Amino acid sequence: MKQLADTRIAIVGLGLMGGSLAGALDGKCRAVVGIARREETLEAARARNLITQGTTDLAAGVRNADIVILATPVRAIISQLAEIGSLLPPGCLLIDLGSTKAHIATAMAGLPDHVDPLGGHPMCGKEVSGLPAADPALYQSKTFILCPLPRTSEGGLELGRALAEAVGAHPLVLAAERQDYLAGTVSHLPYLLACALVSTADATVSADPAVWQIVAGGFRDTSRVAGSDVTMMVDILLTNQDKVLGAVNAYQAQLKRLARLVEAADEEEMRSVLSAIREKRLEMFP
Amino acid sequence: MKQLADTRIAIVGLGLMGGSLAGALDGKCRAVVGIARREETLEAARARNLITQGTTDLAAGVRNADIVILATPVRAIISQLAEIGSLLPPGCLLIDLGSTKAHIATAMAGLPDHVDPLGGHPMCGKEVSGLPAADPALYQSKTFILCPLPRTSEGGLELGRALAEAVGAHPLVLAAERQDYLAGTVSHLPYLLACALVSTADATVSADPAVWQIVAGGFRDTSRVAGSDVTMMVDILLTNQDKVLGAVNAYQAQLKRLARLVEAADEEEMRSVLSAIREKRLEMFP
Repeated sequence: MKQLADTRIAIVGLGLMGGSLAGALDGKCRAVVGIARREETLEAARARNLITQGTTDLAAGVRNADIVILATPVRAIISQLAEIGSLLPPGCLLIDLGSTKAHIATAMAGLPDHVDPLGGHPMCGKEVSGLPAADPALYQSKTFILCPLPRTSEGGLELGRALAEAVGAHPLVLAAERQDYLAGTVSHLPYLLACALVSTADATVSADPAVWQIVAGGFRDTSRVAGSDVTMMVDILLTNQDKVLGAVNAYQAQLKRLARLVEAADEEEMRSVLSAIREKRLEMFP
Repeated sequence: MKQLADTRIAIVGLGLMGGSLAGALDGKCRAVVGIARREETLEAARARNLITQGTTDLAAGVRNADIVILATPVRAIISQLAEIGSLLPPGCLLIDLGSTKAHIATAMAGLPDHVDPLGGHPMCGKEVSGLPAADPALYQSKTFILCPLPRTSEGGLELGRALAEAVGAHPLVLAAERQDYLAGTVSHLPYLLACALVSTADATVSADPAVWQIVAGGFRDTSRVAGSDVTMMVDILLTNQDKVLGAVNAYQAQLKRLARLVEAADEEEMRSVLSAIREKRLEMFP
Protein backbone atom coordinates (compact mmCIF):
# COMPACT_ATOMS: atom_id res chain seq x y z
CA MET A 1 0.00 0.00 0.00
CA LYS A 2 1.16 3.51 -0.86
CA GLN A 3 2.30 5.68 2.05
CA LEU A 4 1.19 9.34 2.11
CA ALA A 5 4.81 10.49 2.56
CA ASP A 6 5.70 8.98 -0.86
CA THR A 7 2.83 10.52 -2.81
CA ARG A 8 2.63 13.38 -5.29
CA ILE A 9 -0.65 15.20 -4.66
CA ALA A 10 -2.40 17.40 -7.23
CA ILE A 11 -5.10 19.77 -6.00
CA VAL A 12 -7.60 21.09 -8.56
CA GLY A 13 -8.98 24.42 -7.37
CA LEU A 14 -7.08 26.69 -5.00
CA GLY A 15 -9.93 28.38 -3.14
CA LEU A 16 -10.50 28.29 0.59
CA MET A 17 -10.68 24.48 0.77
CA GLY A 18 -8.01 23.60 -1.82
CA GLY A 19 -5.57 26.33 -0.78
CA SER A 20 -5.91 25.44 2.91
CA LEU A 21 -5.44 21.73 2.15
CA ALA A 22 -2.35 22.44 0.05
CA GLY A 23 -0.80 24.38 2.94
CA ALA A 24 -1.77 21.70 5.46
CA LEU A 25 -0.14 18.96 3.34
CA ASP A 26 3.20 20.78 3.21
CA GLY A 27 5.88 18.36 4.43
CA LYS A 28 3.43 15.44 4.65
CA CYS A 29 3.98 14.21 1.08
CA ARG A 30 6.52 14.34 -1.76
CA ALA A 31 4.99 17.28 -3.63
CA VAL A 32 1.83 19.40 -3.77
CA VAL A 33 0.92 20.50 -7.29
CA GLY A 34 -1.67 23.27 -7.46
CA ILE A 35 -3.97 23.50 -10.49
CA ALA A 36 -5.96 26.70 -11.00
CA ARG A 37 -7.66 28.44 -13.90
CA ARG A 38 -5.77 31.69 -13.44
CA GLU A 39 -2.02 32.25 -13.31
CA GLU A 40 -2.51 34.91 -10.59
CA THR A 41 -4.01 32.32 -8.26
CA LEU A 42 -0.94 30.11 -8.72
CA GLU A 43 1.36 33.07 -8.07
CA ALA A 44 -0.50 33.92 -4.87
CA ALA A 45 -0.33 30.27 -3.74
CA ARG A 46 3.40 30.15 -4.49
CA ALA A 47 3.99 33.43 -2.66
CA ARG A 48 2.35 31.88 0.43
CA ASN A 49 4.37 28.64 0.03
CA LEU A 50 1.16 26.65 -0.18
CA ILE A 51 2.22 24.62 -3.26
CA THR A 52 5.42 23.00 -4.57
CA GLN A 53 4.47 23.51 -8.23
CA GLY A 54 1.56 25.12 -10.03
CA THR A 55 -0.04 24.92 -13.45
CA THR A 56 -3.17 26.06 -15.29
CA ASP A 57 -3.00 22.88 -17.42
CA LEU A 58 -5.15 20.16 -15.86
CA ALA A 59 -3.66 17.33 -17.96
CA ALA A 60 -0.08 18.30 -17.13
CA GLY A 61 -0.88 18.85 -13.46
CA VAL A 62 -2.42 15.43 -12.83
CA ARG A 63 -0.19 13.35 -15.15
CA ASN A 64 2.20 12.03 -12.45
CA ALA A 65 -0.08 12.36 -9.43
CA ASP A 66 -0.64 9.55 -6.93
CA ILE A 67 -3.56 11.45 -5.44
CA VAL A 68 -5.76 14.03 -7.21
CA ILE A 69 -8.08 16.18 -5.08
CA LEU A 70 -10.99 18.06 -6.66
CA ALA A 71 -11.54 21.14 -4.50
CA THR A 72 -14.12 23.02 -6.56
CA PRO A 73 -17.89 23.52 -6.03
CA VAL A 74 -20.04 20.39 -6.37
CA ARG A 75 -21.27 20.90 -9.92
CA ALA A 76 -17.79 21.82 -11.15
CA ILE A 77 -16.62 18.53 -9.62
CA ILE A 78 -19.35 16.66 -11.49
CA SER A 79 -18.25 18.27 -14.80
CA GLN A 80 -14.59 17.52 -14.06
CA LEU A 81 -15.40 13.87 -13.30
CA ALA A 82 -16.76 13.51 -16.83
CA GLU A 83 -13.44 14.44 -18.42
CA ILE A 84 -10.62 13.80 -15.95
CA GLY A 85 -10.58 9.98 -16.00
CA SER A 86 -8.46 9.54 -19.14
CA LEU A 87 -5.90 12.07 -17.85
CA LEU A 88 -5.12 10.16 -14.66
CA PRO A 89 -2.32 7.61 -14.29
CA PRO A 90 -3.25 3.99 -13.37
CA GLY A 91 -4.08 3.48 -9.70
CA CYS A 92 -4.49 7.18 -9.06
CA LEU A 93 -6.63 7.94 -6.00
CA LEU A 94 -9.22 10.59 -6.91
CA ILE A 95 -10.81 12.40 -3.94
CA ASP A 96 -13.27 15.29 -4.06
CA LEU A 97 -14.15 17.79 -1.33
CA GLY A 98 -17.73 18.48 -2.42
CA SER A 99 -20.36 19.31 0.21
CA THR A 100 -22.97 16.87 -1.13
CA LYS A 101 -22.01 13.32 -2.02
CA ALA A 102 -24.78 11.29 -3.71
CA HIS A 103 -24.62 13.03 -7.12
CA ILE A 104 -20.81 12.93 -7.03
CA ALA A 105 -20.84 9.22 -6.13
CA THR A 106 -23.02 8.58 -9.19
CA ALA A 107 -20.58 10.53 -11.39
CA MET A 108 -17.60 8.73 -9.84
CA ALA A 109 -19.16 5.35 -10.60
CA GLY A 110 -18.71 6.17 -14.31
CA LEU A 111 -14.93 6.75 -14.08
CA PRO A 112 -12.62 4.40 -16.03
CA ASP A 113 -11.46 1.30 -14.13
CA HIS A 114 -7.84 2.42 -13.66
CA VAL A 115 -8.98 5.25 -11.33
CA ASP A 116 -9.63 4.68 -7.60
CA PRO A 117 -12.40 7.14 -6.57
CA LEU A 118 -13.26 8.25 -3.01
CA GLY A 119 -15.79 10.89 -1.94
CA GLY A 120 -14.68 13.38 0.72
CA HIS A 121 -16.33 16.18 2.67
CA PRO A 122 -14.36 18.05 5.31
CA MET A 123 -16.75 19.83 7.71
CA CYS A 124 -15.00 23.17 7.87
CA GLY A 125 -17.07 25.81 6.14
CA LYS A 126 -16.49 29.50 6.65
CA GLU A 127 -18.50 32.44 5.33
CA VAL A 128 -15.39 33.55 3.51
CA SER A 129 -14.07 31.98 0.33
CA GLY A 130 -11.12 32.14 -2.04
CA LEU A 131 -7.39 31.71 -1.65
CA PRO A 132 -6.86 34.87 0.44
CA ALA A 133 -8.92 33.21 3.21
CA ALA A 134 -6.95 29.94 2.98
CA ASP A 135 -5.46 28.74 6.26
CA PRO A 136 -3.42 25.54 6.73
CA ALA A 137 -5.06 25.15 10.17
CA LEU A 138 -8.57 25.06 8.62
CA TYR A 139 -8.88 21.26 8.91
CA GLN A 140 -7.50 21.03 12.43
CA SER A 141 -9.83 18.97 14.68
CA LYS A 142 -12.60 19.00 12.04
CA THR A 143 -14.50 15.92 10.89
CA PHE A 144 -13.43 14.79 7.40
CA ILE A 145 -16.18 12.60 5.97
CA LEU A 146 -15.06 9.86 3.56
CA CYS A 147 -17.65 8.22 1.30
CA PRO A 148 -16.13 5.14 -0.35
CA LEU A 149 -17.90 3.65 -3.40
CA PRO A 150 -18.30 -0.14 -3.74
CA ARG A 151 -15.37 0.07 -6.19
CA THR A 152 -13.07 2.07 -3.90
CA SER A 153 -10.01 -0.06 -2.99
CA GLU A 154 -9.10 -0.77 0.62
CA GLY A 155 -5.73 0.88 0.04
CA GLY A 156 -7.44 3.95 -1.42
CA LEU A 157 -9.67 4.35 1.62
CA GLU A 158 -6.67 3.92 3.93
CA LEU A 159 -4.72 6.56 2.01
CA GLY A 160 -7.75 8.88 2.26
CA ARG A 161 -7.83 8.35 6.03
CA ALA A 162 -4.08 9.04 6.26
CA LEU A 163 -4.53 12.27 4.30
CA ALA A 164 -7.37 13.45 6.55
CA GLU A 165 -5.31 12.68 9.64
CA ALA A 166 -2.22 14.36 8.19
CA VAL A 167 -4.06 17.69 7.98
CA GLY A 168 -5.28 17.35 11.59
CA ALA A 169 -8.83 16.20 10.79
CA HIS A 170 -10.83 13.22 12.12
CA PRO A 171 -11.87 10.87 9.29
CA LEU A 172 -15.44 9.53 9.43
CA VAL A 173 -16.61 6.92 6.91
CA LEU A 174 -20.26 7.41 5.88
CA ALA A 175 -22.43 6.27 2.97
CA ALA A 176 -23.13 9.13 0.52
CA GLU A 177 -26.93 9.07 1.02
CA ARG A 178 -26.56 9.12 4.78
CA GLN A 179 -24.10 12.03 4.74
CA ASP A 180 -26.45 14.00 2.46
CA TYR A 181 -29.42 13.37 4.75
CA LEU A 182 -27.50 14.44 7.86
CA ALA A 183 -25.84 17.45 6.20
CA GLY A 184 -29.23 18.49 4.78
CA THR A 185 -30.48 19.07 8.32
CA VAL A 186 -27.39 20.21 10.22
CA SER A 187 -25.72 22.26 7.50
CA HIS A 188 -27.93 23.15 4.49
CA LEU A 189 -31.11 23.82 6.50
CA PRO A 190 -29.36 26.36 8.81
CA TYR A 191 -28.25 28.24 5.68
CA LEU A 192 -31.84 28.61 4.43
CA LEU A 193 -33.05 29.54 7.93
CA ALA A 194 -30.43 32.27 8.18
CA CYS A 195 -31.36 33.55 4.70
CA ALA A 196 -35.06 33.64 5.58
CA LEU A 197 -34.25 35.60 8.76
CA VAL A 198 -32.29 38.23 6.82
CA SER A 199 -35.16 38.47 4.28
CA THR A 200 -37.73 38.85 7.04
CA ALA A 201 -35.84 41.67 8.72
CA ASP A 202 -35.31 43.27 5.33
CA ALA A 203 -39.00 43.04 4.45
CA THR A 204 -40.26 44.36 7.79
CA VAL A 205 -38.21 46.17 10.45
CA SER A 206 -35.26 47.29 8.35
CA ALA A 207 -37.12 50.45 7.26
CA ASP A 208 -36.66 51.71 10.85
CA PRO A 209 -33.08 52.95 11.29
CA ALA A 210 -33.24 52.27 15.05
CA VAL A 211 -33.28 48.54 14.33
CA TRP A 212 -29.55 48.47 13.59
CA GLN A 213 -28.84 49.90 17.00
CA ILE A 214 -30.84 47.24 18.78
CA VAL A 215 -29.70 44.21 16.80
CA ALA A 216 -27.97 41.98 19.33
CA GLY A 217 -25.95 38.78 19.25
CA GLY A 218 -28.98 36.55 18.74
CA PHE A 219 -29.80 37.97 15.33
CA ARG A 220 -26.16 38.16 14.32
CA ASP A 221 -25.44 34.52 15.17
CA THR A 222 -28.72 33.13 13.85
CA SER A 223 -28.18 34.91 10.52
CA ARG A 224 -24.41 34.38 10.18
CA VAL A 225 -24.38 31.64 7.53
CA ALA A 226 -26.56 33.76 5.21
CA GLY A 227 -23.18 35.29 4.31
CA SER A 228 -21.94 31.96 2.87
CA ASP A 229 -20.56 31.78 -0.66
CA VAL A 230 -23.53 31.76 -3.03
CA THR A 231 -21.94 29.66 -5.80
CA MET A 232 -21.14 26.94 -3.28
CA MET A 233 -24.60 27.07 -1.71
CA VAL A 234 -26.48 27.01 -5.05
CA ASP A 235 -24.50 23.89 -5.95
CA ILE A 236 -25.32 22.29 -2.63
CA LEU A 237 -29.02 23.10 -2.81
CA LEU A 238 -29.31 21.85 -6.39
CA THR A 239 -27.50 18.58 -5.66
CA ASN A 240 -29.24 17.85 -2.33
CA GLN A 241 -32.69 19.16 -3.23
CA ASP A 242 -34.81 16.31 -1.82
CA LYS A 243 -33.01 16.09 1.50
CA VAL A 244 -33.02 19.89 1.92
CA LEU A 245 -36.75 20.18 1.12
CA GLY A 246 -37.47 17.34 3.56
CA ALA A 247 -35.53 19.19 6.26
CA VAL A 248 -37.38 22.46 5.54
CA ASN A 249 -40.72 20.64 5.82
CA ALA A 250 -39.78 19.08 9.14
CA TYR A 251 -38.61 22.50 10.33
CA GLN A 252 -41.82 24.28 9.30
CA ALA A 253 -43.82 21.78 11.36
CA GLN A 254 -41.64 22.45 14.42
CA LEU A 255 -41.87 26.23 14.03
CA LYS A 256 -45.66 26.02 13.62
CA ARG A 257 -45.80 24.00 16.84
CA LEU A 258 -43.83 26.69 18.71
CA ALA A 259 -46.02 29.47 17.26
CA ARG A 260 -49.13 27.60 18.47
CA LEU A 261 -47.53 27.36 21.89
CA VAL A 262 -47.01 31.13 22.01
CA GLU A 263 -50.55 31.71 20.75
CA ALA A 264 -52.08 29.42 23.38
CA ALA A 265 -50.06 31.25 26.09
CA ASP A 266 -50.13 28.13 28.30
CA GLU A 267 -47.25 29.01 30.57
CA GLU A 268 -46.64 25.52 31.99
CA GLU A 269 -46.60 23.91 28.54
CA MET A 270 -44.29 26.63 27.17
CA ARG A 271 -41.90 26.22 30.05
CA SER A 272 -41.85 22.45 29.63
CA VAL A 273 -41.29 22.48 25.84
CA LEU A 274 -38.70 25.28 25.87
CA SER A 275 -36.82 23.73 28.81
CA ALA A 276 -36.62 20.40 26.99
CA ILE A 277 -35.25 22.20 23.90
CA ARG A 278 -32.73 24.09 26.04
CA GLU A 279 -31.57 20.79 27.56
CA LYS A 280 -31.16 19.28 24.08
CA ARG A 281 -29.07 22.27 22.98
CA LEU A 282 -26.85 21.84 26.04
CA GLU A 283 -26.48 18.11 25.29
CA MET A 284 -25.57 18.92 21.68
CA PHE A 285 -22.95 21.50 22.67
CA PRO A 286 -21.93 20.80 26.28
CA MET B 1 -31.21 68.11 38.30
CA LYS B 2 -29.70 65.19 40.20
CA GLN B 3 -26.21 64.09 39.13
CA LEU B 4 -25.51 60.36 38.90
CA ALA B 5 -22.43 60.74 41.12
CA ASP B 6 -24.67 61.92 44.00
CA THR B 7 -27.24 59.14 43.76
CA ARG B 8 -27.89 56.08 45.89
CA ILE B 9 -28.93 53.28 43.54
CA ALA B 10 -30.89 50.19 44.60
CA ILE B 11 -30.94 47.20 42.26
CA VAL B 12 -33.73 44.65 42.70
CA GLY B 13 -32.57 41.28 41.40
CA LEU B 14 -28.90 40.30 41.24
CA GLY B 15 -28.88 37.97 38.25
CA LEU B 16 -26.83 38.44 35.10
CA MET B 17 -28.27 41.87 34.29
CA GLY B 18 -28.58 43.26 37.82
CA GLY B 19 -25.28 41.87 39.05
CA SER B 20 -23.42 43.14 36.01
CA LEU B 21 -25.03 46.58 36.33
CA ALA B 22 -24.12 46.76 40.02
CA GLY B 23 -20.48 46.04 39.20
CA ALA B 24 -20.48 48.52 36.30
CA LEU B 25 -21.86 51.29 38.55
CA ASP B 26 -19.10 50.88 41.11
CA GLY B 27 -17.49 54.30 41.63
CA LYS B 28 -20.04 56.05 39.41
CA CYS B 29 -22.52 56.82 42.21
CA ARG B 30 -22.70 57.22 45.98
CA ALA B 31 -23.79 53.67 46.80
CA VAL B 32 -25.11 50.52 45.14
CA VAL B 33 -27.60 48.62 47.28
CA GLY B 34 -28.33 45.07 46.08
CA ILE B 35 -31.71 43.53 46.86
CA ALA B 36 -32.12 39.78 46.40
CA ARG B 37 -34.46 37.10 47.67
CA ARG B 38 -31.68 34.92 49.05
CA GLU B 39 -28.96 35.85 51.51
CA GLU B 40 -26.46 33.67 49.59
CA THR B 41 -26.90 35.82 46.49
CA LEU B 42 -26.06 38.92 48.53
CA GLU B 43 -23.01 37.20 50.00
CA ALA B 44 -21.77 36.23 46.55
CA ALA B 45 -22.33 39.80 45.29
CA ARG B 46 -20.45 41.20 48.30
CA ALA B 47 -17.61 38.72 47.82
CA ARG B 48 -17.21 39.99 44.24
CA ASN B 49 -17.42 43.65 45.39
CA LEU B 50 -20.41 44.22 43.12
CA ILE B 51 -22.52 45.98 45.78
CA THR B 52 -21.93 48.46 48.61
CA GLN B 53 -24.75 47.06 50.76
CA GLY B 54 -27.22 44.21 50.40
CA THR B 55 -30.58 43.26 51.82
CA THR B 56 -33.37 40.75 51.33
CA ASP B 57 -35.88 43.38 52.52
CA LEU B 58 -37.29 45.29 49.54
CA ALA B 59 -38.79 48.11 51.65
CA ALA B 60 -35.55 48.71 53.55
CA GLY B 61 -33.45 48.49 50.39
CA VAL B 62 -35.34 51.13 48.41
CA ARG B 63 -36.22 53.48 51.29
CA ASN B 64 -33.41 56.01 50.68
CA ALA B 65 -32.77 55.32 47.00
CA ASP B 66 -32.56 58.06 44.38
CA ILE B 67 -32.75 55.45 41.64
CA VAL B 68 -34.34 52.00 41.88
CA ILE B 69 -33.64 49.50 39.10
CA LEU B 70 -35.83 46.44 38.60
CA ALA B 71 -33.59 43.76 37.12
CA THR B 72 -35.91 40.75 37.22
CA PRO B 73 -37.81 38.95 34.40
CA VAL B 74 -40.63 40.93 32.77
CA ARG B 75 -43.57 39.46 34.64
CA ALA B 76 -41.77 39.72 37.98
CA ILE B 77 -41.27 43.42 37.15
CA ILE B 78 -44.98 43.79 36.44
CA SER B 79 -45.82 42.23 39.85
CA GLN B 80 -43.26 44.41 41.60
CA LEU B 81 -44.66 47.56 39.98
CA ALA B 82 -48.01 46.82 41.62
CA GLU B 83 -46.54 46.97 45.13
CA ILE B 84 -43.34 49.01 45.07
CA GLY B 85 -44.82 52.51 44.57
CA SER B 86 -45.66 53.21 48.19
CA LEU B 87 -42.19 52.07 49.32
CA LEU B 88 -40.31 54.61 47.20
CA PRO B 89 -39.24 58.06 48.42
CA PRO B 90 -40.62 61.15 46.58
CA GLY B 91 -38.93 61.88 43.23
CA CYS B 92 -37.35 58.43 43.05
CA LEU B 93 -36.43 57.41 39.49
CA LEU B 94 -37.71 53.87 38.85
CA ILE B 95 -36.09 52.09 35.90
CA ASP B 96 -36.66 48.51 34.78
CA LEU B 97 -34.48 46.33 32.56
CA GLY B 98 -37.26 44.16 31.10
CA SER B 99 -36.90 42.85 27.55
CA THR B 100 -40.42 43.86 26.46
CA LYS B 101 -41.75 47.31 27.21
CA ALA B 102 -45.43 47.84 26.32
CA HIS B 103 -46.90 45.78 29.20
CA ILE B 104 -44.42 47.33 31.63
CA ALA B 105 -45.26 50.85 30.40
CA THR B 106 -48.93 50.13 31.14
CA ALA B 107 -48.05 48.92 34.65
CA MET B 108 -45.77 51.95 35.20
CA ALA B 109 -48.59 54.31 34.24
CA GLY B 110 -50.42 53.18 37.37
CA LEU B 111 -47.61 54.11 39.80
CA PRO B 112 -48.27 56.82 42.42
CA ASP B 113 -47.46 60.37 41.32
CA HIS B 114 -44.39 60.79 43.53
CA VAL B 115 -42.51 58.15 41.49
CA ASP B 116 -40.70 59.00 38.21
CA PRO B 117 -40.86 55.87 36.00
CA LEU B 118 -38.66 55.09 32.98
CA GLY B 119 -38.58 51.91 30.88
CA GLY B 120 -35.17 50.47 30.05
CA HIS B 121 -33.87 47.59 27.93
CA PRO B 122 -30.14 47.05 27.58
CA MET B 123 -29.42 44.89 24.49
CA CYS B 124 -26.91 42.55 26.03
CA GLY B 125 -28.37 39.08 26.37
CA LYS B 126 -26.23 36.02 26.91
CA GLU B 127 -27.27 32.37 26.99
CA VAL B 128 -26.02 32.24 30.54
CA SER B 129 -27.88 33.68 33.51
CA GLY B 130 -27.49 34.27 37.21
CA LEU B 131 -24.97 36.15 39.32
CA PRO B 132 -22.03 33.79 38.61
CA ALA B 133 -22.19 34.95 34.96
CA ALA B 134 -22.32 38.66 35.93
CA ASP B 135 -19.65 40.81 34.33
CA PRO B 136 -19.25 44.59 34.86
CA ALA B 137 -18.19 44.86 31.20
CA LEU B 138 -21.51 43.36 29.99
CA TYR B 139 -22.99 46.75 29.01
CA GLN B 140 -19.86 48.04 27.30
CA SER B 141 -20.68 49.39 23.80
CA LYS B 142 -24.20 47.90 23.92
CA THR B 143 -27.37 49.81 23.06
CA PHE B 144 -29.41 50.69 26.16
CA ILE B 145 -32.98 51.43 25.08
CA LEU B 146 -34.88 53.97 27.18
CA CYS B 147 -38.69 54.13 26.89
CA PRO B 148 -39.97 57.25 28.66
CA LEU B 149 -43.69 57.47 29.51
CA PRO B 150 -45.63 60.70 28.94
CA ARG B 151 -45.25 61.25 32.73
CA THR B 152 -41.49 60.67 32.84
CA SER B 153 -39.73 63.92 33.89
CA GLU B 154 -37.05 65.45 31.72
CA GLY B 155 -34.58 65.15 34.62
CA GLY B 156 -35.48 61.48 35.02
CA LEU B 157 -34.79 60.74 31.36
CA GLU B 158 -31.48 62.62 31.57
CA LEU B 159 -30.46 60.65 34.68
CA GLY B 160 -31.37 57.44 32.81
CA ARG B 161 -29.15 58.49 29.92
CA ALA B 162 -26.30 59.31 32.31
CA LEU B 163 -26.66 55.88 33.94
CA ALA B 164 -26.55 54.08 30.58
CA GLU B 165 -23.47 56.05 29.55
CA ALA B 166 -21.79 55.47 32.93
CA VAL B 167 -21.85 51.70 32.35
CA GLY B 168 -20.40 52.11 28.85
CA ALA B 169 -23.65 51.70 26.91
CA HIS B 170 -25.22 53.86 24.18
CA PRO B 171 -28.65 55.16 25.24
CA LEU B 172 -31.39 55.06 22.57
CA VAL B 173 -34.82 56.59 23.24
CA LEU B 174 -37.67 54.60 21.67
CA ALA B 175 -41.43 54.35 22.21
CA ALA B 176 -42.41 51.11 23.97
CA GLU B 177 -44.55 49.80 21.08
CA ARG B 178 -41.81 50.46 18.56
CA GLN B 179 -39.13 48.75 20.65
CA ASP B 180 -41.39 45.69 21.08
CA TYR B 181 -42.03 45.49 17.33
CA LEU B 182 -38.33 45.73 16.47
CA ALA B 183 -37.20 43.38 19.26
CA GLY B 184 -39.92 40.91 18.22
CA THR B 185 -38.15 40.44 14.89
CA VAL B 186 -34.47 40.89 15.70
CA SER B 187 -34.41 39.25 19.13
CA HIS B 188 -37.48 37.13 20.00
CA LEU B 189 -37.92 35.61 16.53
CA PRO B 190 -34.29 34.32 16.39
CA TYR B 191 -34.94 32.56 19.72
CA LEU B 192 -37.92 30.65 18.31
CA LEU B 193 -36.02 29.87 15.10
CA ALA B 194 -33.11 28.43 17.07
CA CYS B 195 -35.52 26.38 19.20
CA ALA B 196 -37.28 24.99 16.11
CA LEU B 197 -33.90 24.02 14.62
CA VAL B 198 -32.91 22.09 17.75
CA SER B 199 -36.34 20.38 17.75
CA THR B 200 -36.00 19.48 14.09
CA ALA B 201 -32.59 17.89 14.55
CA ASP B 202 -33.89 16.12 17.64
CA ALA B 203 -36.94 14.75 15.82
CA THR B 204 -35.02 13.60 12.73
CA VAL B 205 -31.24 13.17 12.42
CA SER B 206 -30.30 12.96 16.11
CA ALA B 207 -31.00 9.20 16.17
CA ASP B 208 -27.85 8.78 14.03
CA PRO B 209 -24.77 9.10 16.26
CA ALA B 210 -22.65 10.24 13.28
CA VAL B 211 -24.59 13.50 13.21
CA TRP B 212 -22.69 14.88 16.21
CA GLN B 213 -19.44 14.37 14.38
CA ILE B 214 -20.57 16.31 11.35
CA VAL B 215 -22.30 19.21 13.10
CA ALA B 216 -20.37 22.29 12.02
CA GLY B 217 -20.37 25.96 12.93
CA GLY B 218 -23.52 26.74 10.94
CA PHE B 219 -25.76 24.61 13.13
CA ARG B 220 -24.02 25.71 16.30
CA ASP B 221 -24.41 29.42 15.59
CA THR B 222 -27.93 29.20 14.18
CA SER B 223 -29.10 27.27 17.26
CA ARG B 224 -27.11 29.16 19.90
CA VAL B 225 -29.90 31.25 21.44
CA ALA B 226 -32.02 28.11 22.02
CA GLY B 227 -29.85 27.88 25.15
CA SER B 228 -31.29 31.16 26.52
CA ASP B 229 -32.80 31.31 29.99
CA VAL B 230 -36.31 29.81 29.77
CA THR B 231 -37.91 31.89 32.51
CA MET B 232 -36.79 35.07 30.78
CA MET B 233 -37.93 33.86 27.36
CA VAL B 234 -41.37 32.67 28.56
CA ASP B 235 -41.88 36.13 30.06
CA ILE B 236 -40.84 37.79 26.83
CA LEU B 237 -43.02 35.60 24.63
CA LEU B 238 -46.06 36.07 26.88
CA THR B 239 -45.67 39.85 27.04
CA ASN B 240 -44.87 40.38 23.35
CA GLN B 241 -47.19 37.72 21.93
CA ASP B 242 -48.72 39.71 19.04
CA LYS B 243 -45.43 41.11 17.76
CA VAL B 244 -43.71 37.73 18.02
CA LEU B 245 -46.52 35.90 16.18
CA GLY B 246 -46.46 38.57 13.48
CA ALA B 247 -42.72 38.08 13.06
CA VAL B 248 -43.11 34.27 12.87
CA ASN B 249 -45.79 34.69 10.17
CA ALA B 250 -43.58 36.98 8.12
CA TYR B 251 -40.72 34.50 8.55
CA GLN B 252 -42.76 31.50 7.47
CA ALA B 253 -43.66 33.29 4.23
CA GLN B 254 -39.97 34.01 3.55
CA LEU B 255 -38.92 30.43 4.27
CA LYS B 256 -41.71 29.09 2.03
CA ARG B 257 -40.44 31.36 -0.75
CA LEU B 258 -36.90 29.97 -0.39
CA ALA B 259 -38.20 26.39 -0.34
CA ARG B 260 -40.11 27.06 -3.59
CA LEU B 261 -36.91 28.44 -5.06
CA VAL B 262 -35.04 25.22 -4.21
CA GLU B 263 -37.93 23.14 -5.54
CA ALA B 264 -38.04 25.03 -8.85
CA ALA B 265 -34.26 24.57 -9.21
CA ASP B 266 -34.04 27.71 -11.35
CA GLU B 267 -30.35 28.38 -10.97
CA GLU B 268 -30.36 32.01 -12.16
CA GLU B 269 -33.23 32.95 -9.86
CA MET B 270 -31.60 31.15 -6.91
CA ARG B 271 -28.32 32.89 -7.52
CA SER B 272 -30.00 36.28 -7.75
CA VAL B 273 -32.16 35.88 -4.61
CA LEU B 274 -29.40 34.35 -2.47
CA SER B 275 -26.84 36.93 -3.61
CA ALA B 276 -29.21 39.77 -2.67
CA ILE B 277 -29.67 38.18 0.78
CA ARG B 278 -25.92 37.77 1.17
CA GLU B 279 -25.43 41.44 0.30
CA LYS B 280 -28.07 42.43 2.89
CA ARG B 281 -26.29 40.35 5.54
CA LEU B 282 -23.00 42.07 4.71
CA GLU B 283 -24.71 45.48 4.91
CA MET B 284 -26.22 44.54 8.29
CA PHE B 285 -22.87 43.37 9.70
CA PRO B 286 -20.08 44.94 7.62
